[in-house]
Amino acid sequence: MHKYLIKYLNEHISTPLRESEIELVKKTFAPKQFKRKQYLLQAGDVCKYFAFITKGAMRQYSVDDKGAEHTVGLFIERWWAGDRESFIMLTPSAYNVDAWEDTEALLVTKTDLANMIDQIPVLTEWIRKLDANAAIASQRRLNAAISLSAEERYHDLEETYPEFLQRFPQHIIASYLGITPETLSRVRGLSAKK
Amino acid sequence: MHKYLIKYLNEHISTPLRESEIELVKKTFAPKQFKRKQYLLQAGDVCKYFAFITKGAMRQYSVDDKGAEHTVGLFIERWWAGDRESFIMLTPSAYNVDAWEDTEALLVTKTDLANMIDQIPVLTEWIRKLDANAAIASQRRLNAAISLSAEERYHDLEETYPEFLQRFPQHIIASYLGITPETLSRVRGLSAKK
Repeated sequence: MHKYLIKYLNEHISTPLRESEIELVKKTFAPKQFKRKQYLLQAGDVCKYFAFITKGAMRQYSVDDKGAEHTVGLFIERWWAGDRESFIMLTPSAYNVDAWEDTEALLVTKTDLANMIDQIPVLTEWIRKLDANAAIASQRRLNAAISLSAEERYHDLEETYPEFLQRFPQHIIASYLGITPETLSRVRGLSAKK
Repeated sequence: MHKYLIKYLNEHISTPLRESEIELVKKTFAPKQFKRKQYLLQAGDVCKYFAFITKGAMRQYSVDDKGAEHTVGLFIERWWAGDRESFIMLTPSAYNVDAWEDTEALLVTKTDLANMIDQIPVLTEWIRKLDANAAIASQRRLNAAISLSAEERYHDLEETYPEFLQRFPQHIIASYLGITPETLSRVRGLSAKK
């Protein structure tokens, strides 16, 4: 499983990892299997682990006072799952993260991640890209949520992450877009006719 | 003006900047004055400068096909204004950033910022916090936009950034929250009665 992570890291840094560094990466990340519906994180807990998904799909969502679920994140292979705020600040999370499919992931704690980056300085390049990309992706979704119509949001998702439409069912996609399943169904109907 | 930036940077790193480093920071950031309504960035241009605001207030917004403005960011003293995605990727921006009040800011280019951080490695601590906090703030706003009611969003803003309510008018606040000015007015009425 670690080979996927090593390949991913090497793609995001200017000098490939050396053998001793690869060994440290392997020691830092612990493999874990999740059955569908099992939790990586439950709301109210601190997000102790960030997960690099090597196989499967996960979902991050909040549950409001009325029991409705709001999907803030969807993750598949080569994505990082977890609540960044809780992981960095060590505060209780407002979100659940669970496995949507049976999932294999590599888990890391905040302390172990920091130690690894201290010992492999080139990884600073990767972590900065990861943070910057997370900020960019959140800003894009925020802009879509406050300024685009339901139809535009769907097309935006279709273009940006087409694989999500294959991996997650309608009601999850609707929740991710912040629209009702009925609106999603109407928008997809319009889209198919074009 | 640079003294505000030096103070800000020193608050975000573990070792205070030395005299030679302070000189480099001063050379890296160029002061600029903006009259109200003047642009730091216009949609379609690449965001060449990130701006540290030392006095005043700025606003980041998109304009849709119908001419409606959607406010994605509000910035006051000690905040960074600019479009992170365009600044990092050097792609044309979807946003305008302009001065809401007469504003004094310190401007930096991507290249000069990278050179400065290469020469003052302790600033990596600051830039990582800045990126991480941007990702966290965007995620919070996204969650609010897709899962909270208009009233909850207003209270969230009242708690998180009370100063925004003093510095920006109703229609900007409404746009920032993704609600109509009429809804904002109703929500504020309810809030005042409590």
